[in-house]
Amino acid sequence: MKPLQISAVLFPGFELLDVFGPLEMFGLLGGRARLRLLAEDVGPVMSSAGIQAFADYRIEEGADILLVPGGIGTRQLVESPGFLERLRKVAGASEIVASVCTGSALLARAGLLDGKRATSNKLAFEWVVSQGPKVNWQRRARWVVDGSVWTSSGIAAGMDMSLAVIADRFDHATASEIARRAEYLWNESSEEDPFAVEK
Amino acid sequence: MKPLQISAVLFPGFELLDVFGPLEMFGLLGGRARLRLLAEDVGPVMSSAGIQAFADYRIEEGADILLVPGGIGTRQLVESPGFLERLRKVAGASEIVASVCTGSALLARAGLLDGKRATSNKLAFEWVVSQGPKVNWQRRARWVVDGSVWTSSGIAAGMDMSLAVIADRFDHATASEIARRAEYLWNESSEEDPFAVEK
Repeated sequence: MKPLQISAVLFPGFELLDVFGPLEMFGLLGGRARLRLLAEDVGPVMSSAGIQAFADYRIEEGADILLVPGGIGTRQLVESPGFLERLRKVAGASEIVASVCTGSALLARAGLLDGKRATSNKLAFEWVVSQGPKVNWQRRARWVVDGSVWTSSGIAAGMDMSLAVIADRFDHATASEIARRAEYLWNESSEEDPFAVEK
Repeated sequence: MKPLQISAVLFPGFELLDVFGPLEMFGLLGGRARLRLLAEDVGPVMSSAGIQAFADYRIEEGADILLVPGGIGTRQLVESPGFLERLRKVAGASEIVASVCTGSALLARAGLLDGKRATSNKLAFEWVVSQGPKVNWQRRARWVVDGSVWTSSGIAAGMDMSLAVIADRFDHATASEIARRAEYLWNESSEEDPFAVEK
């Protein structure tokens, strides 16, 4: 079987764990997955924490599973028609699109969440909602699946969602075994959200 | 107050989440911390998952808090006297040395754990033990503190340890607030270790 291509979209000001939490879990699929970091240009990309990851491919490369992180950099990117157009194109060609944290604001502005259920970071929720008036935003959810689009709550929630993606795409035993190897206490319920903030 | 310098040592075959889980937590200290990625040479460093981070400084740069990850690359590095000597030097000049996963095998081979209590990844435990016959290895511990040396269990345990380092170095409220902002369910007890494997 051809390895599943799983790629994260980097941009200046991306949140570290939004990218590397999910990629740790997908990486533990071993030969069943092939990971890549994509960006506007090949080269180092600065995170919000002031350290850099290195993108080997451009966004146009696409993926089977496209991971879209959040981070302070999303505040500028929602105003970039060029980026949003590229995101819309590669997302459309992906089997699954999965966002973490404020990454869902990018999906919303790219029109990828219109008419869909979605969630986001709980500390930036009102801002994210303002980016997608046609989205059915879920205030209480660790993550949400609607068709091929998965959206998770803030930062660490991306790991729980990724294990759920693995359970869905492979099987539950594979996801459980990966959580065990990562010594990660997987929060398996998408509905349990201890960080939900009511309006 | 001068920001705390927190640096992770990268090497080929490092484990992604061992580095970026802790750095996410430390990064949420904002202006109170300054993060860096160190390596043998400045430039991209390949993780065990096939994607790269970018080291801006050489190992000799050192840090106040030195983070030593694990990963498959440790199997070669334990046989590198040059690396172990550099590690010993910068660790000796650090306020805190903290390892994640099989990073403790590197600390052990550098002689930094002799006579100390320490732990490691539970799936590679026997190999790690074989790297440090003078270490008081703890089979059941999410993380262990002995003087200025902190060692954690596998991969995800590094995040729990890092929050405990923050609670120790700053205060508990700061660590709790960071966990909340990361939407991370902090496993606060160093003694609760659901992944322990008895010999």
